[in-house]
Amino acid sequence: MRAEIFSVGTELLLGEIVDTNAAYLAQQLSALGIDLYYISQIGDNLGRLVDALKRAKSRSDLTIITGGLGPTEDDLTREAIAETLGERMVVQPDLERELRDFFARRHREMPETNVKQATLIPSARAIPNPVGTAPGWWVEKDGWIVVAMPGVPSEMKRMWEHEVAPRLRDCCGGAVIYSRTLKVIGLGESTVEEMIRPLLSSSNPTLATYAKNDGIHVRLAAKAANQEEAERLIAGPEARVREILGDSIYGVNDETLESVVGQLLQKKGLTLATMESCSGGFLASLITDVPGSSAYFRGGVVAYSNDMKVAMGVDRQTIEKYGAVSAETAAAMARAIRQRTGADIGLAVTGVAGPSLLEGKPVGTAHIALDLQGRPAALYQVFGTMRAQIKRMSALNALNLLRLELIK
Amino acid sequence: MRAEIFSVGTELLLGEIVDTNAAYLAQQLSALGIDLYYISQIGDNLGRLVDALKRAKSRSDLTIITGGLGPTEDDLTREAIAETLGERMVVQPDLERELRDFFARRHREMPETNVKQATLIPSARAIPNPVGTAPGWWVEKDGWIVVAMPGVPSEMKRMWEHEVAPRLRDCCGGAVIYSRTLKVIGLGESTVEEMIRPLLSSSNPTLATYAKNDGIHVRLAAKAANQEEAERLIAGPEARVREILGDSIYGVNDETLESVVGQLLQKKGLTLATMESCSGGFLASLITDVPGSSAYFRGGVVAYSNDMKVAMGVDRQTIEKYGAVSAETAAAMARAIRQRTGADIGLAVTGVAGPSLLEGKPVGTAHIALDLQGRPAALYQVFGTMRAQIKRMSALNALNLLRLELIK
Repeated sequence: MRAEIFSVGTELLLGEIVDTNAAYLAQQLSALGIDLYYISQIGDNLGRLVDALKRAKSRSDLTIITGGLGPTEDDLTREAIAETLGERMVVQPDLERELRDFFARRHREMPETNVKQATLIPSARAIPNPVGTAPGWWVEKDGWIVVAMPGVPSEMKRMWEHEVAPRLRDCCGGAVIYSRTLKVIGLGESTVEEMIRPLLSSSNPTLATYAKNDGIHVRLAAKAANQEEAERLIAGPEARVREILGDSIYGVNDETLESVVGQLLQKKGLTLATMESCSGGFLASLITDVPGSSAYFRGGVVAYSNDMKVAMGVDRQTIEKYGAVSAETAAAMARAIRQRTGADIGLAVTGVAGPSLLEGKPVGTAHIALDLQGRPAALYQVFGTMRAQIKRMSALNALNLLRLELIK
Repeated sequence: MRAEIFSVGTELLLGEIVDTNAAYLAQQLSALGIDLYYISQIGDNLGRLVDALKRAKSRSDLTIITGGLGPTEDDLTREAIAETLGERMVVQPDLERELRDFFARRHREMPETNVKQATLIPSARAIPNPVGTAPGWWVEKDGWIVVAMPGVPSEMKRMWEHEVAPRLRDCCGGAVIYSRTLKVIGLGESTVEEMIRPLLSSSNPTLATYAKNDGIHVRLAAKAANQEEAERLIAGPEARVREILGDSIYGVNDETLESVVGQLLQKKGLTLATMESCSGGFLASLITDVPGSSAYFRGGVVAYSNDMKVAMGVDRQTIEKYGAVSAETAAAMARAIRQRTGADIGLAVTGVAGPSLLEGKPVGTAHIALDLQGRPAALYQVFGTMRAQIKRMSALNALNLLRLELIK
């Protein structure tokens, strides 16, 4: 089955928004085992839309359109499908009632132009959209399937997940593509690639590495008749990757380093406090991104000045003797914040976020220290030169140091 | 002049990457006054590439291609252009020398397949690429211009800015489109739209509002023969928007709330410290995103527990009497952190980030307080229900409260 995607909207051609819908749908089609051959962005222009649809009818079995289902004159997806198929749009009383109800529930007047959102053509069935005013269209004619969905990403994704994907799975799904992503931290992409090189030539499942902002992702993707078989295909290679990369793997799929650390802390009944300088609050912010983190996170200090470090219990002599950016000061920060807050664990980061050298140490230098009920651990590393990257990498590596201590 | 963009790469059709190149180029073409009619993503397939190029030759004056210029068998952009024009690729000695030098400088062996990056066809001139191995192609034949650039965004953008945009401006630029974005905080999108409605019907400049994660953007875009004229066209409407929205406008174009606040603090020689609960470190992290922020930011406390607030100088009785989420506790936090750190300004946020109610107060509730050398200011608001949104909005509104006090 050959599929094609159209994203409709002049704002795409002005570069005012990036087309994330097409990338989402491309990934989804791949998981359904449907081959995608073309993606195009088209403006709100009837002639060009009809041209594109006629070409799609001649070369694709399935055409997926997002956008152009709004109520205004600019919204021309329905009109273009009707013209391509030589059919006429007719208002459907049941759809019109739903539409008027939608406005009534919000105590708003329905503009009369909106009624075009309640139309269908003979070859189209409506696809429900409980979160917006525009139902989608599922069109079948001459062996060609057209699916039209709203362009608003949240409405489109809901409609895809609840309505379109299940129907496509039934009618048209090919082999299933099932993937698992193992997330790695503490190793560079080329190192990871080198370590698992013998596995990278595998064709089913395929293995690939991606450098992401939360570490290196190793993606295993298998193609099979069904998910169970795909999972079986992945199991062996995944076990080998885990054997090779060991504790450097911190999570799978949607897991984040901060959620994994949160789970470990909760399981062990330990509480945490932080003191950070170069990461500037990013470490605390990562930790508090996890819902329910108040159960284990006592709080943190962003000690952006030496006075602040001293006020929070770091010995001024330590700073003066070794420097604010040193293993000794990091250790003192971890110990001080643990004692000051009564938490089980103190986690500290001190470093140089730039733009200039500090104490003669280069931008990107970071010392990370941990005090787990008196047991120390430490990490020293230099992270790039970009401020945002230094903040992120020093915070992530602090969390990883904690993770490694917790799983010891 | 009608332009068309192709982004080449099978990874785009698998949804593994989002096509940000096309959006960037679309914006750039718009600024050059060149009309863009089509964007397409195409896989690494010679037949489909040639089909697409033949269609582009028949319907566009300018075709811009990114991707497919690498050294491997999958990289087929050069081959597709050659086949479309019926021309033959020939290795150019000068390009080959540059290519071999590139590898020699990095002490690496050049794989022989790379030599195809040193080819041209008779209608093509090379576009220099000092940051990568693949030069671009500038092709002109039968009144059709094809520009092929690497797919790596950093290489593409450099080549565009230094080589392609200047040539296009000379040969093909139409009217200039010049835009300015005014950034607004503290008002919702529909309120902003309502306030400036009379201006929204203007056709040159056009005015539009966009809801972004740092507030509402009001974009003024003028079309004119040159930038000076476009700026003149924008000046009047911009002055009227500024009159209507007043202090709600915090910045222009690339300015951020945190950079604007940083400039104000530096100008006034004031220092800042923060204490935050529901924003969980995001406020401190925003402040420290600004290079040089250590000049005015003493540091902050993420007081995620009542004990932490008390340890930092908040009176326990205030918390017990009014609740941790209250105007009184927020004010006490601002005062305490100012006194504790000796900063001129204490800025505090306390609220409910969820997932559940706190002290019977709904998720999203936030109290913000400021103590500017003893002068208090406060803000109470309810921000959505999503954790990330509550963190972001409470932090941004805290910065905005500070900004409004500083410009008083």
